[in-house]
Amino acid sequence: MKKTLISMTFALLSHCAFAQTETISTPPKNIIFMIGDGMGPAYTTAFRYFNDNLQTKEIESTVFDTILTGMSRTYPDDDTYVTDSAAGATALSSGHKTYNGAIAVDNDKSPTKTMLEIAKEKNMITALIATSQINHATPASFASHNEYRRNYNEIADDYIDNKINGKLPVDLLFGGGTDYFKRSDRNLINEFIKSGYQYTESLKDLDLITQLPAIGLFAKIGLPYVIDSKTKHLEKMTTKAFSLLENNSRNGFFIMIEGSQIDWCGHNNDISCAMAEMNDFANSISIAKKYVDKHPDTLLVVTADHSTGGLTLGANGLYKWETQIIKDLNVSAKQLSDNLFESSNLESIWKNHSKIKLTVENLKALNIAKAKNKEALFLAVKKIINDLSYTGWTTDGHTAVDVQIFAYGQGSKLFHGSMNNTDIAKQLINIIQ
Amino acid sequence: MKKTLISMTFALLSHCAFAQTETISTPPKNIIFMIGDGMGPAYTTAFRYFNDNLQTKEIESTVFDTILTGMSRTYPDDDTYVTDSAAGATALSSGHKTYNGAIAVDNDKSPTKTMLEIAKEKNMITALIATSQINHATPASFASHNEYRRNYNEIADDYIDNKINGKLPVDLLFGGGTDYFKRSDRNLINEFIKSGYQYTESLKDLDLITQLPAIGLFAKIGLPYVIDSKTKHLEKMTTKAFSLLENNSRNGFFIMIEGSQIDWCGHNNDISCAMAEMNDFANSISIAKKYVDKHPDTLLVVTADHSTGGLTLGANGLYKWETQIIKDLNVSAKQLSDNLFESSNLESIWKNHSKIKLTVENLKALNIAKAKNKEALFLAVKKIINDLSYTGWTTDGHTAVDVQIFAYGQGSKLFHGSMNNTDIAKQLINIIQ
Repeated sequence: MKKTLISMTFALLSHCAFAQTETISTPPKNIIFMIGDGMGPAYTTAFRYFNDNLQTKEIESTVFDTILTGMSRTYPDDDTYVTDSAAGATALSSGHKTYNGAIAVDNDKSPTKTMLEIAKEKNMITALIATSQINHATPASFASHNEYRRNYNEIADDYIDNKINGKLPVDLLFGGGTDYFKRSDRNLINEFIKSGYQYTESLKDLDLITQLPAIGLFAKIGLPYVIDSKTKHLEKMTTKAFSLLENNSRNGFFIMIEGSQIDWCGHNNDISCAMAEMNDFANSISIAKKYVDKHPDTLLVVTADHSTGGLTLGANGLYKWETQIIKDLNVSAKQLSDNLFESSNLESIWKNHSKIKLTVENLKALNIAKAKNKEALFLAVKKIINDLSYTGWTTDGHTAVDVQIFAYGQGSKLFHGSMNNTDIAKQLINIIQ
Repeated sequence: MKKTLISMTFALLSHCAFAQTETISTPPKNIIFMIGDGMGPAYTTAFRYFNDNLQTKEIESTVFDTILTGMSRTYPDDDTYVTDSAAGATALSSGHKTYNGAIAVDNDKSPTKTMLEIAKEKNMITALIATSQINHATPASFASHNEYRRNYNEIADDYIDNKINGKLPVDLLFGGGTDYFKRSDRNLINEFIKSGYQYTESLKDLDLITQLPAIGLFAKIGLPYVIDSKTKHLEKMTTKAFSLLENNSRNGFFIMIEGSQIDWCGHNNDISCAMAEMNDFANSISIAKKYVDKHPDTLLVVTADHSTGGLTLGANGLYKWETQIIKDLNVSAKQLSDNLFESSNLESIWKNHSKIKLTVENLKALNIAKAKNKEALFLAVKKIINDLSYTGWTTDGHTAVDVQIFAYGQGSKLFHGSMNNTDIAKQLINIIQ
């Protein structure tokens, strides 16, 4: 068994995710923590095959493939193995497992210190980006504390009131949520502005944000689906964030960026929706990787809080996953279904949005469902898409499968192998402290 | 951001899967390659939670958790992203992607050289163990070549006829398959014996095997399910194999050990069946790890060829996966269903095998199904188990999700991150050559 040192070293390097030589004696200065909400292994696999050019034999790697390092156990401290996003994000933000619904509080409801708060104590710049409302479970679990994730107003208040050494906890916020931040009982945006924050409500006006601190809220609640709005929101927000952070991070920065709506599409069992959100998230990861390349004292970690929908690639006995069916849709199944519900000419509306040829049976099923109600029509639309593409779903909730960990840059070696989700947080907290 | 070298090194070691210090300048002498057929990420996650002691808060790591290193892309060279076990095993045995159904042949039907053949050329001891018939797709793809996996007789013939430098390709074979090896047209067992092989047909008579070469065929086709036979076949065969290899491997050995029936249970959407097969496979991995600890010039690699059944932990909207339901079954759903079909007293039979309390509705559904036919009853039995445990399944076939890679021992660093299944083979071939 002859093997040269050179070829084995090459093999090691090529399969260690384009590994840089890690100097773990020096912790990174900047932390980029990206969370794909609901993004189980089936989603990253699906994304690769969805992006495969069917005209060529090769199946290209995705950005996920270049930086995979390990897998994460997501179970909460609750009477189930299946976490929700609140317990999941609390584990990832503060290293504590807790009950489903908890926003950075422990099982006894006491606040758990989050890595963002520790970063702020260290005078680092802090930032949160999401495509959900910015006070939704995942970002909330980094900047606020609440016993129940749906106390949206209280959580939003925390973004002003949860002061760290007298400072507001987050220097840069991009996401949705004007409904919660501009209320009749309290106008948090005014308070942000009085505290020196620049503000905008339009992604087209991002250029108006020229310095930190800043807050941008681009929707009343969550941003619209990428596939429907034809806008890569996360990519835009991420690009802008890095341009602001680049010149403002003498003490380093901590940023959490969430692809929030992979999960929302998953809950809806809507595969075209999910692939567009994955695309936006993947592009944002590529932007983050480029930042690390330019600023090597930076660590990028990407993971998920849990998987959603019980997505499977292959269903109903056939050894197939037909991506063209999905690629041929130009809207989410939700939008398609809403449009069909408003129209009297189902075939014509269908043709506007999908190249799938409706059979007589499909049309009949859609008409019957439409006559029942909107929800029935939505299910019927998805059944056609999922059946034809052999996309499987088992739930409109979450599942317990381990999720992946990806890491790149200084310190990425700390995220190898099988880890508890809380271990990811503990490693990052250890670096930040 | 203060961080000591000591604590970061500790963190690195504790999350690098109890890593030994790799000396990649020296390739390992012995290779243990273990394949969990159908064992996607949901199966290893399920195994952890299935084994969780519900009386204690802690959720113990499994053997899989201790040695996870990466993930594998399983797509075949075919008109689909979903592989079968033949193409999957050909990729893993020889580093070539091929069409579904191919046994170590390329897309043009020409034979692909397998790592087992290369090992035999190098005068290494070679061994194959499986709980399927030993000429089933996975082991077959290491020792034979055939354009179609179901040419079982021709494949079995190869185990004598596919000589490598005048020698039979495999020195030790344990599995099922007397139907294919003791035929009216050809008695391969006699030929093995004439070639100096010891032979047994009973796992209880393994002590009769005292030297190599040897062959043990313990069933007409595949071995019975672990949960039904109450025998950990793979663990027994693995233990015996290592005792034989230990004293016979001056030039090193290559062994492939397959947990074949994880997949068979998955095809049946039978979760209790699958967990028992996973248990047998996990115990066998632990035995292999101990071998590596005792013989550090050994590399252990574990992976899967694909996932099966679209298994999800959580289904039908609930954030639950209820393991007690599954633990309370003492037979496979298949055995339970067969027993119910033969009996007139369904409730009594059910109570013999399951602590699940049958509701009036459940009983009615079973009776209606039984009146139809055996298959309907089987589906009805599984529906009760899967619904009550919130176990999801989307298919009785395979799915395309990436699977995990586990590695331990000398050279394990070569299996980090995201790899193509063919890359796993290329690394091993590189080591063996």
